[in-house]
Amino acid sequence: MARVVVDVMLKPEILDPQGQAVANALPRLGVTGVTSVRIGRRVEIEFDTAAGDEAVAERAREIADKLLANPVIEEYAIRVESPYSEVST
Amino acid sequence: MARVVVDVMLKPEILDPQGQAVANALPRLGVTGVTSVRIGRRVEIEFDTAAGDEAVAERAREIADKLLANPVIEEYAIRVESPYSEVST
Repeated sequence: MARVVVDVMLKPEILDPQGQAVANALPRLGVTGVTSVRIGRRVEIEFDTAAGDEAVAERAREIADKLLANPVIEEYAIRVESPYSEVST
Repeated sequence: MARVVVDVMLKPEILDPQGQAVANALPRLGVTGVTSVRIGRRVEIEFDTAAGDEAVAERAREIADKLLANPVIEEYAIRVESPYSEVST
């Protein structure tokens, strides 16, 4: 049993209208000092496997490439949870 | 300058059709062994402040309550990055 978290965010150079809308709403709500808001997706994938972190991360990367991220405008980071370790792309 | 990450996920008891669609597509793509996929939002907020982690997390919590999460069906976790620390809700 392993859980992998895939964080999919728009590339920094791509405009994020959804995040911009939140950022623009904040002063009206009395919140100041926010310079940027960016909104992406967090995907939690659970595997029923005894495979190691590297193997699980590799399968998560395959899923992200095929289904979760659009490589033209998005980038993603993969993180295997429990036991904690970090594999970035 | 501080960056806060707000992870907004559907509550575990709420059905996630988007994640279910990804989970159902995986066997057709040749990926097996996935028991669950859940998809939520990752929000990165940048503050131009010298305030401490606790103060920044408090403001992020205010933003999440007002704008980012629907407390009826969603839960969120707040994390202050750089220097690393964890504040959960």
